[in-house]
Amino acid sequence: MRRSIAPAELIDGLLAGNRLALARAISRVENEDDGARVILDGVFAQTGRGHLIGVTGAPGTGKSTLVNALARAFRGQGETVAILAVDPTSPFTGGALLGDRVRMTQLSGDPGVFIRSMATRGHLGGLAAASVDVLQLLDSAGFDRILIETVGVGQAEVEIAATAHTTLVVEAPGLGDEVQAIKAGVLEIADIFVVNKADRPGVERTVTALEMMLEQRRGGVRSMRHHGQVMSVALPPTTTAAQEWTIPVLKTVAVEAGGMAKGVDALRQAIEGHRSWLVEGDGMALREESRIARTLETLIQTALSRRMQATLPAEQIAAFIGAVRRRELSPHAAADAVVRQLTG
Amino acid sequence: MRRSIAPAELIDGLLAGNRLALARAISRVENEDDGARVILDGVFAQTGRGHLIGVTGAPGTGKSTLVNALARAFRGQGETVAILAVDPTSPFTGGALLGDRVRMTQLSGDPGVFIRSMATRGHLGGLAAASVDVLQLLDSAGFDRILIETVGVGQAEVEIAATAHTTLVVEAPGLGDEVQAIKAGVLEIADIFVVNKADRPGVERTVTALEMMLEQRRGGVRSMRHHGQVMSVALPPTTTAAQEWTIPVLKTVAVEAGGMAKGVDALRQAIEGHRSWLVEGDGMALREESRIARTLETLIQTALSRRMQATLPAEQIAAFIGAVRRRELSPHAAADAVVRQLTG
Repeated sequence: MRRSIAPAELIDGLLAGNRLALARAISRVENEDDGARVILDGVFAQTGRGHLIGVTGAPGTGKSTLVNALARAFRGQGETVAILAVDPTSPFTGGALLGDRVRMTQLSGDPGVFIRSMATRGHLGGLAAASVDVLQLLDSAGFDRILIETVGVGQAEVEIAATAHTTLVVEAPGLGDEVQAIKAGVLEIADIFVVNKADRPGVERTVTALEMMLEQRRGGVRSMRHHGQVMSVALPPTTTAAQEWTIPVLKTVAVEAGGMAKGVDALRQAIEGHRSWLVEGDGMALREESRIARTLETLIQTALSRRMQATLPAEQIAAFIGAVRRRELSPHAAADAVVRQLTG
Repeated sequence: MRRSIAPAELIDGLLAGNRLALARAISRVENEDDGARVILDGVFAQTGRGHLIGVTGAPGTGKSTLVNALARAFRGQGETVAILAVDPTSPFTGGALLGDRVRMTQLSGDPGVFIRSMATRGHLGGLAAASVDVLQLLDSAGFDRILIETVGVGQAEVEIAATAHTTLVVEAPGLGDEVQAIKAGVLEIADIFVVNKADRPGVERTVTALEMMLEQRRGGVRSMRHHGQVMSVALPPTTTAAQEWTIPVLKTVAVEAGGMAKGVDALRQAIEGHRSWLVEGDGMALREESRIARTLETLIQTALSRRMQATLPAEQIAAFIGAVRRRELSPHAAADAVVRQLTG
């Protein structure tokens, strides 16, 4: 029988950079194990050192290959890398597992790289909350760069990618619809645009379309990210004493290990450039604030929903649903009754 | 100065099918006007008659054109139609407004059709809650068919589409990535698959891919929709005394008014067939239950979040964020403190 490891032991292992301890701590978070909270609170003071890099974009843009290539580029600089792939694929298709296996063969054997996939289990809020916790564990384990890759361009995937310090939005030529990225509101979260598969026809059209959008935006509405309201707290506007960040549009041809990649090292340098810009100005402090506000919002929602499950017996919820179905009670009146009961 | 209309007057107008009253009631919901709640509760007893049809799919599949063509097909049967286009496009691009204008020129002048677009305002939960309310208003106004079109294939868009009685998932050949639909978990919510733009090359490949997926699914995991847990209430499994619903894969070539459409009337018949199947078996009652559970979940979350904003002053939230940023308080500890304060 496998001995259950005490949280304190896992905390020590995590902070010492032990990979087995890290993997076990992540599993506890994913399983919503009681010990998870102790571990998270125990390592929290040691977080905030890793550079969180979000990578999002439509399926078919070659995101995973690009993330692997970037990981190798960072390793080439002697830096350690963690990759967290957040996959809203249904459990049915098993996409996350498959992705893990492909990656393992490419980057395995390198102790400076840690890879983990998380798949949704039917509840997206749960995935967002769990990914926040797992990022904290990866940060506490001392990785220099932490890449968060999300599959898809929906609002929720975008929100996960937006909890990073530096967010990459990946496009590719000839995906049939130039405006895919814009549609899902990813324009507002991009610090760097990457046009991957840049050896394909139509690459200049895609680059031009992105540059025109950025041009238009500079003239008009400014980034929601820096001026947005999170949790009803108006974040201070970015002071522009330091130079403004100019969002670059970079071309890459990412390939698996052994192939001839193009533009990946330039991308790595742009990512590092963005971090320097954040650290030199007040960008990092502001971004940390908005990251924390988003994190708190996610955790509060999860905590409230757990409390609701604990406070209200299933029969009572079923009774509310029945009353609404018979049109005896309006949905708003039912929701109010639940909230009153919950908040005493 | 325009006189503000009393809620009671709007309720009477709504139930009489007055379009101006409907448009004004929707605006009140969108503006979170105090009168909105009175109107919603006032009409609720008259809802539950319209057939809610969700339409979702990736950008580029021709969803909007298909929805317009379907609206004309229903009108051809003498039925009234409302279209609600829910667009998570950022306010920056103004996609929703543009879509409205294109539609107006196609279907305008027909008093049996009502069209409305809703765009997100930076907060997706808010959009889901508002769309639930607007659907209720459209239902109370007596439309036979209510089409809800969502842009994008993210989890949140899927959830909005899944609040329908009958859900269509639209694909198109040659979008570069056959698995787009599967990736976002839309397989589980489809009652009918539509391969639109079926005059394009590769259509049979797309149809075959979908049919293979459906075949695989029949052998394995069953629909999450019917067996899922919503709000911690285990919904009863679909009793299969009646025949099971076999998800069809239909080909269409939807065009704007005046063009030569193909397969749209067959699709209309399949939609009606699905409704008959729901009504004849116990499907409709089960789906209504899961619809209401989802609706309550959305409204409860919104109500809790409003209560949080009312209970906690912005300075206090800012203080929590600051304490987390200085690593004095862990995010979970801060979230717990907020929840304790909120729930007394």
